Amino acid sequence: MSLSHWLSTSISSSSAFLSSPIFNSRNQHVCLPPKDLVICRCVTASQEEKTVFKTKVSRNVNIAKLQAGYLFPEVARRRNAHLQKYPDARVISLGIGDTTEPIPEVITSAMAERSQELSTFEKYSGYGAEQGEKPLRSAIASTFYDGLGIEEDDIFVSDGAKCDISRLQVMFGSEVTMAVQDPSYPAYVDSSVIMGQTGQFQKDVEKYAKIEYMRCTPDNGFFPDLSTVSKTDIIFFCSPNNPTGAAATRDQLIQLVKFAKDNGSIIIYDSAYAFYMSDDNPRSIFEIPGAKEVAIETSSFSKYAGFTGVRLGWTVIPKQLLFSDGFPVARDFNRIVSTCFNGASNISQAGGLACLSAEGLKAMHEVVGFYKENTNIIVDTFNSLGFKVYGGKNGPYVWVHFPGQSSWDVFSEILEKTHVVTTPGSGFGPGGEGFIRVSAFGHRDNILEACRRFRQLYK
Amino acid sequence: MSLSHWLSTSISSSSAFLSSPIFNSRNQHVCLPPKDLVICRCVTASQEEKTVFKTKVSRNVNIAKLQAGYLFPEVARRRNAHLQKYPDARVISLGIGDTTEPIPEVITSAMAERSQELSTFEKYSGYGAEQGEKPLRSAIASTFYDGLGIEEDDIFVSDGAKCDISRLQVMFGSEVTMAVQDPSYPAYVDSSVIMGQTGQFQKDVEKYAKIEYMRCTPDNGFFPDLSTVSKTDIIFFCSPNNPTGAAATRDQLIQLVKFAKDNGSIIIYDSAYAFYMSDDNPRSIFEIPGAKEVAIETSSFSKYAGFTGVRLGWTVIPKQLLFSDGFPVARDFNRIVSTCFNGASNISQAGGLACLSAEGLKAMHEVVGFYKENTNIIVDTFNSLGFKVYGGKNGPYVWVHFPGQSSWDVFSEILEKTHVVTTPGSGFGPGGEGFIRVSAFGHRDNILEACRRFRQLYK
Repeated sequence: MSLSHWLSTSISSSSAFLSSPIFNSRNQHVCLPPKDLVICRCVTASQEEKTVFKTKVSRNVNIAKLQAGYLFPEVARRRNAHLQKYPDARVISLGIGDTTEPIPEVITSAMAERSQELSTFEKYSGYGAEQGEKPLRSAIASTFYDGLGIEEDDIFVSDGAKCDISRLQVMFGSEVTMAVQDPSYPAYVDSSVIMGQTGQFQKDVEKYAKIEYMRCTPDNGFFPDLSTVSKTDIIFFCSPNNPTGAAATRDQLIQLVKFAKDNGSIIIYDSAYAFYMSDDNPRSIFEIPGAKEVAIETSSFSKYAGFTGVRLGWTVIPKQLLFSDGFPVARDFNRIVSTCFNGASNISQAGGLACLSAEGLKAMHEVVGFYKENTNIIVDTFNSLGFKVYGGKNGPYVWVHFPGQSSWDVFSEILEKTHVVTTPGSGFGPGGEGFIRVSAFGHRDNILEACRRFRQLYK
Repeated sequence: MSLSHWLSTSISSSSAFLSSPIFNSRNQHVCLPPKDLVICRCVTASQEEKTVFKTKVSRNVNIAKLQAGYLFPEVARRRNAHLQKYPDARVISLGIGDTTEPIPEVITSAMAERSQELSTFEKYSGYGAEQGEKPLRSAIASTFYDGLGIEEDDIFVSDGAKCDISRLQVMFGSEVTMAVQDPSYPAYVDSSVIMGQTGQFQKDVEKYAKIEYMRCTPDNGFFPDLSTVSKTDIIFFCSPNNPTGAAATRDQLIQLVKFAKDNGSIIIYDSAYAFYMSDDNPRSIFEIPGAKEVAIETSSFSKYAGFTGVRLGWTVIPKQLLFSDGFPVARDFNRIVSTCFNGASNISQAGGLACLSAEGLKAMHEVVGFYKENTNIIVDTFNSLGFKVYGGKNGPYVWVHFPGQSSWDVFSEILEKTHVVTTPGSGFGPGGEGFIRVSAFGHRDNILEACRRFRQLYK
């Protein structure tokens, strides 16, 4: 790889980071070599040669295992490159799954009010509980877990499910083994690699050693054949699934909980899209009897209330969930959030509380309903073009099959010919190869325009 | 330890968590045994005996190394116990260092406006760059690092310095060695233990094995004798220091940078209290020539703008900082924030930008000035009582010496007799034994009342 190629491609980054490159020509002492360059010499301002100083600190070998950039910054990088190539194009982003519709006013008003209150002596507040404010924890328990035996003190409020996944990984440490649905949200695998739970990436199978990939395909209805799945300590399971949009049925989740119980595993259940369910499937793993002894659930306001930028989520760790020595998992997680986190922003928490008011819930359901209409439009479009389409009914993602084709090739062709950004299925694991994920998060006119272009491309 | 004792004391937690105990008598299947109980049997609702289910997942051995709870939740727990004992007492908290004064209106208005804008089609925004919004990164660079060669793209905006310390530890991984000032902010040591960088806690010396404790005492002016410090990969250094309030001079920081350079170490420099400096010491490690090749700096809006609950901080990783193989540290940190974090709340970032406006900076300096007046009052009080008092001049903490006494005993006596919460020095490391940290964060009348009580107690 040439240095110039490395300079132009090697930083995986989202747009703001890219727009001001880390390598700045003004700084003439800077020289950042590719990994395989042992010595790097630069021309200094005075035109003398000088060896760049390196510390003696070794790079974390686990981070070095990671392949390329995190998926979504990589998609953003390619979108930006496309924009540079076609500066006048109307690029439509149905990639990362970023919410586009305004947050209902009842929610933003509550955040504005809380902001203003912070300038008053009477209502100012500083450090909150790392676990979240009591009224919000209580509202989450009663709204999402009513009758399920989950209580306020089982709930840890956070700045988002992705952040909690990482904190859960820090809690479990490097010695656990883990299983993921294949395909799945890449943060599960990447955080596992970072924590040293895995071996090296095996290019031939596109998998990390020591991770159990539970293949989810149209053939098995996107639910893994558990009889072929090896026992692991941790099982990441996302339903409705990102990226496939598939939601597990009650019977399937009963199987999953039994599987975990038989193996003594802990399920980390990601229910961040539960509000998008049309079918009568469980919204929470805790609807399944016995799940409290084997499962953690993580979720988020991001896709319910448009909080992708506001940052608010939560994780449920029932007091019944115990390590092998009988130590409560919640106690260790409490130690992690106390040491590594300081709670979600109090303003975001005020927004979360407003989300769970009667008016807020109604407003959230309307926004979710809007995106579900988008989903139907995308599903109908690809169906009418003769594609096999999955998902859509129970999640905001449409999973389109391009049998025999490379996901990145399809991604590139769609971007080049329609100026629409999607997400390549292979970015979610080898089981996603040959698929494209189309996000339903978008303004209606953009969704309609993207579908018009898809029809043009695939007519 | 009896089960009932464990139930009442073992959860280290802040107030909200404690107020609804994790063990709820209504839930009759719950039984959470102490670690040393191998089997635990509980009476079920039907009065039959039933063995509690345990997973087969082993508890992370590194977390098991941690001693007691994280310091500040433990202080909060004792405060709450005191409140239960004396429900009518006017308890004054000069413990955790929580800001008490309202956030200047120019800043809260900006956050309120951003909140409201999120309900509009024109101004709604979803996911931001994980590294932070460009205008804020740019304003941080120009406000705090003008002329120091730190650029916008060297800055990572975060939800706070404590959270960034943890993410830095995740980046460095388990194989690095580290040094800390002794005493120091406990998150450095605790996050190092969690990541597996240390050995067990050695009760005889009150230290974790494999951590280099750099003793900072009145005798050495709270700057370690570097000639006796072993080489480590990472050196945590906080100036102005929490808890001692001591600020390193330019000469001392030149020594520190040279020491790091000679050893090939990386300094993690915590400058969260730089605004509190009265003396003409460096506000940033990057004022020292060559520091960009050996140092990371982390800081926060918490103590400048009262953002302890709003959550906003930043970390600077110069592009010149390289691992031993020449790989830029900033690139790995970028991968960590992309994978394990989703950026600070956009509303908090709007607040941060307002902080750095001309009006915001003036308002922040006024609040800092108010707390500095508090510091003077506390210093004068203890001086007049004949105590040896350190800190105060360059940081918002007063470090009071009680030679030969146990910090926790002094803490308890002060709490019991004056209803004032302080922080025991030994919570910051063995070098803090015999000291009490008194925080200057408080309403003026509380500071005056606390000092009146101190005078009463120690007259």
